[in-house]
Amino acid sequence: MTEVWRDLLSSESPFLRERREYRPPLCPALAAPAAALRPLPGLRLEVLKAAREQLPYVSNTPVVEILPREAPVEAPRPRRLGVVLSGGPAPGGHNVIAGLFDAATRAHPENRVLGFVGGPKGIMVGRYVEITREMVDRHFNTGGFHMLGTGRDKIDTPERLAQCRHTCVDLHLDGLVVVGGDDSNTNAAFLAEHLREAGVQVIGIPKTIDGDLKVPGLVEVPFGFHSACLAFATEVGNLNADCTSDRKYWHFNRLMGRSASHIVLEVALQTHPNVVLIGEEIEERELTIHNVVRLIADVVVERSRQGKDYGTVLIPEGILEFIHEINVLIIKISYIIATYNRQATAEESFHKLSFEDQVQLIDNSDIWRDYDSRVFLGFPSLLQRGLLLPRDSHGNFPFAQVNTERILQEMVATYLRKQRAKGIYRGTFRTQNHYYGYDGRGTFPSKFDCDYGYNLGAAAFALLSQGATGCMAGIRQLHRPVAEWQPVGIPLAALMHLEERAGRLELVIAKQRVDLESRAFQVLAEERPRWALKDDYRFPGPIQFYGAAADSKPLTLLLNSLEA
Amino acid sequence: MTEVWRDLLSSESPFLRERREYRPPLCPALAAPAAALRPLPGLRLEVLKAAREQLPYVSNTPVVEILPREAPVEAPRPRRLGVVLSGGPAPGGHNVIAGLFDAATRAHPENRVLGFVGGPKGIMVGRYVEITREMVDRHFNTGGFHMLGTGRDKIDTPERLAQCRHTCVDLHLDGLVVVGGDDSNTNAAFLAEHLREAGVQVIGIPKTIDGDLKVPGLVEVPFGFHSACLAFATEVGNLNADCTSDRKYWHFNRLMGRSASHIVLEVALQTHPNVVLIGEEIEERELTIHNVVRLIADVVVERSRQGKDYGTVLIPEGILEFIHEINVLIIKISYIIATYNRQATAEESFHKLSFEDQVQLIDNSDIWRDYDSRVFLGFPSLLQRGLLLPRDSHGNFPFAQVNTERILQEMVATYLRKQRAKGIYRGTFRTQNHYYGYDGRGTFPSKFDCDYGYNLGAAAFALLSQGATGCMAGIRQLHRPVAEWQPVGIPLAALMHLEERAGRLELVIAKQRVDLESRAFQVLAEERPRWALKDDYRFPGPIQFYGAAADSKPLTLLLNSLEA
Repeated sequence: MTEVWRDLLSSESPFLRERREYRPPLCPALAAPAAALRPLPGLRLEVLKAAREQLPYVSNTPVVEILPREAPVEAPRPRRLGVVLSGGPAPGGHNVIAGLFDAATRAHPENRVLGFVGGPKGIMVGRYVEITREMVDRHFNTGGFHMLGTGRDKIDTPERLAQCRHTCVDLHLDGLVVVGGDDSNTNAAFLAEHLREAGVQVIGIPKTIDGDLKVPGLVEVPFGFHSACLAFATEVGNLNADCTSDRKYWHFNRLMGRSASHIVLEVALQTHPNVVLIGEEIEERELTIHNVVRLIADVVVERSRQGKDYGTVLIPEGILEFIHEINVLIIKISYIIATYNRQATAEESFHKLSFEDQVQLIDNSDIWRDYDSRVFLGFPSLLQRGLLLPRDSHGNFPFAQVNTERILQEMVATYLRKQRAKGIYRGTFRTQNHYYGYDGRGTFPSKFDCDYGYNLGAAAFALLSQGATGCMAGIRQLHRPVAEWQPVGIPLAALMHLEERAGRLELVIAKQRVDLESRAFQVLAEERPRWALKDDYRFPGPIQFYGAAADSKPLTLLLNSLEA
Repeated sequence: MTEVWRDLLSSESPFLRERREYRPPLCPALAAPAAALRPLPGLRLEVLKAAREQLPYVSNTPVVEILPREAPVEAPRPRRLGVVLSGGPAPGGHNVIAGLFDAATRAHPENRVLGFVGGPKGIMVGRYVEITREMVDRHFNTGGFHMLGTGRDKIDTPERLAQCRHTCVDLHLDGLVVVGGDDSNTNAAFLAEHLREAGVQVIGIPKTIDGDLKVPGLVEVPFGFHSACLAFATEVGNLNADCTSDRKYWHFNRLMGRSASHIVLEVALQTHPNVVLIGEEIEERELTIHNVVRLIADVVVERSRQGKDYGTVLIPEGILEFIHEINVLIIKISYIIATYNRQATAEESFHKLSFEDQVQLIDNSDIWRDYDSRVFLGFPSLLQRGLLLPRDSHGNFPFAQVNTERILQEMVATYLRKQRAKGIYRGTFRTQNHYYGYDGRGTFPSKFDCDYGYNLGAAAFALLSQGATGCMAGIRQLHRPVAEWQPVGIPLAALMHLEERAGRLELVIAKQRVDLESRAFQVLAEERPRWALKDDYRFPGPIQFYGAAADSKPLTLLLNSLEA
């Protein structure tokens, strides 16, 4: 008896066991017995002067394509490779390790892969495990980064670079694969430069659910983005079904994704909500927060006239960054807090003051104008308090901690009360607020991300085996079947730009924002007015691994790859 | 070009098109050409005296089993049937209509099914559509109730009963199927009694994601519960993956489910979170809110000692109802508000007062003791304000509107600060709060709920065709394959008890709470201490329709059906 229920309850669920059995296909170049690298014809990325100066060696790397070869040119030597998962988990990360491990053990039986534990700190302190077949099989096609854990430590000081060098030399590593977002790949570039003389090659892997790490024409989308968006689309699609059945609530949904609105764009194309806010568009159109509120409220009023007191709204987590007036206040307030805190004791620090005293202190500052006060005092209390939230250790504003969905919902409610008083609005505005983020980040990877992660891992090995360093693995033609995928290596130095970080210009990989000229955005802009009023809801359903939906790909990827 | 992207974006997603193709199997009794009813041997449900008095006719119905028959006893006559969806949407509702429609059209080509639009109000005002093959096919196996919409109006006054009678007679209906929860099935019983002389039979269908409408041995689970729990389990499982990867956050999750904790129990068995609160157990053990806080905090402290500053907590939405001290305050405050409001003008009503004035007013009441004040003032402000929320039109407290997850998280944080001061706790307590409800309610139905809903619809037709009224369709042996399912009819009168509603005793169907003697709960109680400290997380993954996970059933159902 106990055995029956132990089996029913086993953490080895039937689904998990089945998922582990899946073996992703490799594209022809990576399935071949050996690889060759060739500079990609007709493509030369520009490298910034600062990058050439700070990364002289790796700046010389061209974009290369990985081509198949029947046999290795010379007898392969055994290699010792390291791999690290960095930043927030993204579905498909375990498959990157599987792809690397499988390619390595296929190339030479004595190849070894060491996994650093707990993110980049694992490299610095030399904490690692040797990856085994059993570990790979147990985590194949599963979500999360729990195979090795992850971390957010930056390898950004000479001391930390030296620690990493020490560990890599100590472990006799030939190569290191860094799976991460823009900052982690920035670190990978500096590591590559620094470890060159020690004979350690470094390859980056484009990971982030946020979709903001990409290279036009080479990396159209990072791995993890598709799965996370599908998870969010499932949730938003379910809310669509709920609200058109119950006809009772407006659902305000804030979606994870840092500054850029890639996730909201993709989820909107998947689900057809009634209101879709895109940060980059709000900036381009120079909208104030009151404009944004009006934009939502107008749809609420118009739908109410049709008898529809319900709907869904998508809000990117980074939206406040794109509203100019708010950004100005954030910068001024950050400056005022920093200036005050430099002179105050810990007991008297800004965030120990009462809200009223904080406002008073800001009001007394020389850089705070009457206009700023008027704007600030025109905001609801929740937003005022949000703008005063403690800054992080770099003085950055914690956008993700502001309940923007609730702020907007309350502001819309206030606006609607006025419209009601004027007789313009007669509906009932009942709401539910949602924030979706961590649940989507931890989802099982879609088939696309399983395949993509696995091929990226294999591509990293191919690049290492051919002597490349300081580059990021990528796959072109992702919108085509795996048999047509083309693996490449992209010089990390060419992705860098100068950005202000903690008050000084630093060389970092540029985050990519939603391109308002892209077809995906333009299709959204064309369809949105119809979605606003009609209930043209799309119900993408839960992520599937068999059947018609199993072979789905990001709609932004597919739309942007259509010929003009 | 435009055609390509229109196809990519079509609200007819590949998944939706595929799901519609699925045709659920019928159990043998319902697949047969005709049906017979037979009182279920050895089973006689007791009927309350009040029910016998108020529902004299339908109180005489026995529990019947539906048996297969090779051919109808007499030539079937064409029937006109009505169907209505009532209350919050539940996955599988569209299949109930499909099952009813298919059974009806199979029995006689002239049979007609009318669907009332917008819930019970549709019956009262005579708003309906005729269900067609095309409508059924378009909604087959989809989530939501948008085929007909839904509503919460109660058919609970002589006027409303008369309106319904008028509509049914006007439309020449022979039968009416009411798909709903406890209140809707209560209405169905009174409708059956009232419409008897008009020749209209009424059958109820057990629907609710909350799982609190069941009849031991006859209806082990209502339809919709499984799918919603799987949707929540996907989300919680994803959070498990996220938190064991990032090792950074405690995720506090409040799950929908009204008073009872069935959903939390099922989702806990599916996902193995670190802390699981069950309202019924809290009541049984007479825990105060501070006990509950301590219960969570102890796990946080112990895990922190193991280096695990992360975890998942499940909180039933109705938990406050089960904490005696809070329940007492809620009742007293409700009374004080009602008494005050009876004398106050609309402008001066309780909820127009400032928080301070509200508290003062409560404090001045005769029924408010010093002890109450001490308890109330010992609560965090968020809970104090929660307890003062406006009551609904019946004076009921809106439990679902209180952010219990945030209240508990803040109270745990406060407690941990004290433990830190004593040197007992040295961890970092970072948190994320989640409320999952509407998204799970709107999910696509699992295969189990597709089959279950379809068979329930067919069972309703079988009951109607054999002259039954005032009963609820049910399926026994749900834990077995569909080929072994046994459809039954259960007298609604026998499910009734007396309950205080708006100050008077009313005859309503009893909500079922989690049975602490059930195997499902006992397994939870046995496993929970291990889940608390080990990371034995279970990742059930998204709802699947093919493969090993497609044939899943509620774990509570399977556990409770195991022989002792």
